Amino acid sequence: MDPKFNEKIDQEIASRAAELFSALSDTSRIQILIALLHEEMNVGSLAETVGISESAASHHLRNLRYLHLVKARKKGRQVFYSLDDDHISELIQSGLDHVLHG
Amino acid sequence: MDPKFNEKIDQEIASRAAELFSALSDTSRIQILIALLHEEMNVGSLAETVGISESAASHHLRNLRYLHLVKARKKGRQVFYSLDDDHISELIQSGLDHVLHG
Repeated sequence: MDPKFNEKIDQEIASRAAELFSALSDTSRIQILIALLHEEMNVGSLAETVGISESAASHHLRNLRYLHLVKARKKGRQVFYSLDDDHISELIQSGLDHVLHG
Repeated sequence: MDPKFNEKIDQEIASRAAELFSALSDTSRIQILIALLHEEMNVGSLAETVGISESAASHHLRNLRYLHLVKARKKGRQVFYSLDDDHISELIQSGLDHVLHG
C-alpha cells in the first residue's frame, strides 16, 4: 500500500480524536460525564448536579450526543441520558486518574 | 463534611480534566502522542513522523511536558521523549478506540 495513504488515514484519525478531546475541554461537560459514570440521569437532575440551567445542560447534551459520547433513552415522558459506550467511561476515568494521581 | 466543599473539589477536578483534554485538542499533539505509544523518540524523529518543523514539535513537547503528558530522558547529547505514565496511553487509546469503533 502507498505509505502516503496510511499517513493520510493516521492524520484523519488524529484529527477526529482531537475533535473528540476538544468536546471534552469544558468543565460543565466533564461534570455531566462524571455524573453519568455512576447512573443515567434526566436533564433536570444533570442541570442541578452540575449547577447550570436546564437549557445549558440541553445544549451540552446535544453536542455530546452528536459526538456519540452520550445516548438518550425515552421512558414515558422523560428522557434519560447515559454514557454511549465503555470507551467513554475509560476515557473520562483515565483523564480523572491523570489529574488526581498523574 | 460540608457538601459545598465536595462540590468545589469536584468542580476543580473537572476543570483540571477539561484543561487536560484541551491540551489534546490538536491534531499534531495527538499524532505526537500516538507515535510515543510505540516507542520513545527524539524531537527530530517526532517532527518527521508528524510532518511538522522541529521548532513546532519542540513547542508542542514543552506544553505536553508542562501537563505531565510526556517526559524527557537525556542520553548523551540527545533528548528522548516518552509518555509520562500508563494513564496517558490509556487516555489516547480510549480516544482512538472511540473514534475507530465508537
